[in-house]
Amino acid sequence: MEPGRLIEITDPADVRIAEFTAIRERDLTGRQGQFIAEGTVVLSMLAKAHGSGGAVRAEKLLLLKNRVAGLSDLIGQFPDDLPVYVAEAAVLDAIAGFHLHRGVLALGSRAAPPDLAQLIAALPESALVLVGCGISNHDNIGALFRNAAGFTADAVLLDETCCDPLYRKALRVSVGAVLAVPYARQGGAEEVLRTLAEAGFEIWALSPSGTVEIGAIAPGRRVALVMGTEGEGLPAAILDRFRSARIAQAPGLDSLNVGTASGIALYAIARAMGRLG
Amino acid sequence: MEPGRLIEITDPADVRIAEFTAIRERDLTGRQGQFIAEGTVVLSMLAKAHGSGGAVRAEKLLLLKNRVAGLSDLIGQFPDDLPVYVAEAAVLDAIAGFHLHRGVLALGSRAAPPDLAQLIAALPESALVLVGCGISNHDNIGALFRNAAGFTADAVLLDETCCDPLYRKALRVSVGAVLAVPYARQGGAEEVLRTLAEAGFEIWALSPSGTVEIGAIAPGRRVALVMGTEGEGLPAAILDRFRSARIAQAPGLDSLNVGTASGIALYAIARAMGRLG
Repeated sequence: MEPGRLIEITDPADVRIAEFTAIRERDLTGRQGQFIAEGTVVLSMLAKAHGSGGAVRAEKLLLLKNRVAGLSDLIGQFPDDLPVYVAEAAVLDAIAGFHLHRGVLALGSRAAPPDLAQLIAALPESALVLVGCGISNHDNIGALFRNAAGFTADAVLLDETCCDPLYRKALRVSVGAVLAVPYARQGGAEEVLRTLAEAGFEIWALSPSGTVEIGAIAPGRRVALVMGTEGEGLPAAILDRFRSARIAQAPGLDSLNVGTASGIALYAIARAMGRLG
Repeated sequence: MEPGRLIEITDPADVRIAEFTAIRERDLTGRQGQFIAEGTVVLSMLAKAHGSGGAVRAEKLLLLKNRVAGLSDLIGQFPDDLPVYVAEAAVLDAIAGFHLHRGVLALGSRAAPPDLAQLIAALPESALVLVGCGISNHDNIGALFRNAAGFTADAVLLDETCCDPLYRKALRVSVGAVLAVPYARQGGAEEVLRTLAEAGFEIWALSPSGTVEIGAIAPGRRVALVMGTEGEGLPAAILDRFRSARIAQAPGLDSLNVGTASGIALYAIARAMGRLG
């Protein structure tokens, strides 16, 4: 890294870093293709996604000044012409609107996610996809992506009622997997599942009332695992129409957390498909 | 519920509800046996634990006034002589120090957790226990308890460096399981594991570098699953001395979230032990 590349910000209202102002509130309103990435692991995933020439681009970095010396490897992963802004802690906190104890931020952008039908058409012959229906909690969306990456899912398909996975917290909880796993967020749940069924996917809807225990499934070559929300679960219309699976557990308890349930189900299916080492 | 049982609080400084003031900060300092329970599900677990006559007691409730009418079933689960305080939203927020959108709180207390050796000695002949080492994140502690309950663990044993599971957020994330699953928090990790080994437990330490894939374990009648922190994992001294298991996953990725990993491992072991329906 050449020291001359760093641009110091001393005024929290500097227009060059305007996208980072009040990022907690911004998270609530959406950002139309732009997103904030936080932390060294997620920034490293952003650099990789940018370098691959796909839909994800890094726009600028904003770093805590006294951390820069330890971040030269990370900065070096981004293109030389990417603006790298630095600020003292007080300025950085004033920009963000709250205390950022790590102080490693980036602004990224993403072209509109691919069309659902195109994404499905591009999937390999042997494929595992994770489908989310009505999942509006940012932590849960992040957990779905983290587990999808961990268990070799080829794509995540979200219905239009799910929250944007590029929200700051969802991206952070995903440990950057949102930038690596192909995804779409389009259409109603039944439309997504119908398109998958037409493409030859076995549809397994996960529910505490599912008919088959997840570890007993002998999956085919194309499998879609469908997750609903923690409270309400999947709509009856979906459970009635497609195959359903349950995770065996102690009777009479509140169902598992969505992230944990998706991890267990993906692990069981990916293992049964022979996809895990 | 008799309406006369409700006691209205109009002054946020009222000493009768002093334990609820600034509960976010209080969480950071510990509470010596007292804890704050939030939400209808956790309060219902508190009422059940209180009714069982064990170490957990309900001390008082503090409810948002306009929710009381819908909570009569919940209130009825507590003893008739338990104080039920109610407050308008502005007063409640001033007491708590932040906006409580649900407004369902209780103060509970718990006698000191049982002695580690006594708890282990009281376990049934066929037993599954979850051990946490160095887990200081409140969400992760809560997730361990939720999964322990979900997958029939007989106890959770935490080493002395784990955080208190009665912290407000840990209790909430556990969906009240902290009040239901027996636990101890005592001793160093190696001491806990040595005591378990002497009691005839197979010790399986979970690690990305584990030697046996978790789904391939044929467990005996007494099994202890050991979880470390997300970043550092378990100390080499533990991995060297005891058997270690890994969760098969995509190569080269950041390891799973502690909650998800504990869920997958507990599910696999409890299923192999024939404990799940």
